[in-house]
Amino acid sequence: MPAILINGRPAEYISVLDRGFQYGDGLFETLRISAGKPRRWAQHMARMTVGCQTLRIAMPESTLLLSEVMRLCSGEGDGVLKITITRGTGERGYAPPAQTASTRVLSLSSAVVFPAAYYRDGVSVRVCDTRLADNPILAGIKHLNRLEQVLARAEWQEGEEERESTQVAEGLMLDNNNNVIEGTMSNLFCVQESGSGSVLKTPLLTHCGVKGITRENIINVAEAAGIPVQETTLELADLYRSQELFLCNTLMGIWPVRQLEEQHFDVGPMTGQLSQALESLHD
Amino acid sequence: MPAILINGRPAEYISVLDRGFQYGDGLFETLRISAGKPRRWAQHMARMTVGCQTLRIAMPESTLLLSEVMRLCSGEGDGVLKITITRGTGERGYAPPAQTASTRVLSLSSAVVFPAAYYRDGVSVRVCDTRLADNPILAGIKHLNRLEQVLARAEWQEGEEERESTQVAEGLMLDNNNNVIEGTMSNLFCVQESGSGSVLKTPLLTHCGVKGITRENIINVAEAAGIPVQETTLELADLYRSQELFLCNTLMGIWPVRQLEEQHFDVGPMTGQLSQALESLHD
Repeated sequence: MPAILINGRPAEYISVLDRGFQYGDGLFETLRISAGKPRRWAQHMARMTVGCQTLRIAMPESTLLLSEVMRLCSGEGDGVLKITITRGTGERGYAPPAQTASTRVLSLSSAVVFPAAYYRDGVSVRVCDTRLADNPILAGIKHLNRLEQVLARAEWQEGEEERESTQVAEGLMLDNNNNVIEGTMSNLFCVQESGSGSVLKTPLLTHCGVKGITRENIINVAEAAGIPVQETTLELADLYRSQELFLCNTLMGIWPVRQLEEQHFDVGPMTGQLSQALESLHD
Repeated sequence: MPAILINGRPAEYISVLDRGFQYGDGLFETLRISAGKPRRWAQHMARMTVGCQTLRIAMPESTLLLSEVMRLCSGEGDGVLKITITRGTGERGYAPPAQTASTRVLSLSSAVVFPAAYYRDGVSVRVCDTRLADNPILAGIKHLNRLEQVLARAEWQEGEEERESTQVAEGLMLDNNNNVIEGTMSNLFCVQESGSGSVLKTPLLTHCGVKGITRENIINVAEAAGIPVQETTLELADLYRSQELFLCNTLMGIWPVRQLEEQHFDVGPMTGQLSQALESLHD
């Protein structure tokens, strides 16, 4: 059981009238806690602020949230913190209440340790049947309507394979136009040769998908290193003809992709370079 | 505060680890309670069973649910019952737990009484900007991912207008291909003249939308009365050239549409005939 603060108080239960439970009417962030402190705090708060503006939910004061995070995490070493903000409780019906206080839930759980082989040798990835629906308003933000991810993730089970090296670590999701968008819990990059050198490409997230903090940081460190970056439409065929492929999120960092369905990829130099640059980022 | 049973016990709070709160990983039904008994019980259970099969959530035994409903509603007269079923609690992450007991929440609130003018004169309806995204897997079922409805319903406020007769009672939602799908909380029918008489049409719900119980019953009573019914694609232009337009759901029954944006409609004979036929249905 993780340690939880609901609106600043230790608690584990929330009203069934909370609109987070009723409609998924809210947002969340997953943060890494290192030595009792949240990583990339400003970036997570910036994304949550955009999400709150989009859904017109009252964003709690960042200083209040930070003080509660520190109360929960100080002295706890490394861990994973989930922050959930909902529109708060309401009467029956979709109409947002005229006046309501948003609900904030902070939940601290143990640090996740992934196999070292994921980073050294890369991971095996499948293509999911479940598609991401186009919704330009909700695209990019990390809202609580996550049934598509749940259905996609339910398409395979961990430990189905006999050896760890053949286990599927993540599934890619496409939109209804056959564009690859992201993994169920990660963003995606590929490296392609162009006439003048290597280009780093990642799916455009204007119609669906979540704009990950780590995705943003990878784009930043790549551009700082003089690597051309393109946010663009990518089909599976584009991935299959890439030189390198990798996944990222806040908890995993960068996972090279060793295998996509039947096709093998080498763990390439740009993936290594960006992994190092990402690790050396402060904050 | 409504009267609530969670997994058979009087309670108002649910674990924040419930996947209904975490991801909207569940389903709901809204039922009318008349004289302490649920209306259309078998139909609501049938839809919920389909939803549970789609999401691979363990459907509670219908007899268990009914006994709890009766415990909550007996002697309470008329009301509104919301039944929510979620996948239950789980660890962090989208993967459905291998073993988990679904959560059931029964919540009884007061009966809703709509203005008599809604039925006599019809209602005024707007067209929402928020679109319904295509997701054929989730289409039809009443799942807990309802941000699209929340955003659409937030586009107008009740009581904005000075007189009740000009108030907007519902908003229509279109998909990304400009097909009209449904209201934020209702299904939609229109009556159109064909060469051989009137045809009743309602949007096809294969890619998005909720298949309402009342929608199903209207189709049934219309067909029993020899009225041709078509589930088909309908654009706004098709609605504007209809003779009659009406909305329906479990709680409202049938609301004639008097006005859609700027266009006026008469409350027509088929709307009246179907309203009567619907009211005379047993169960």
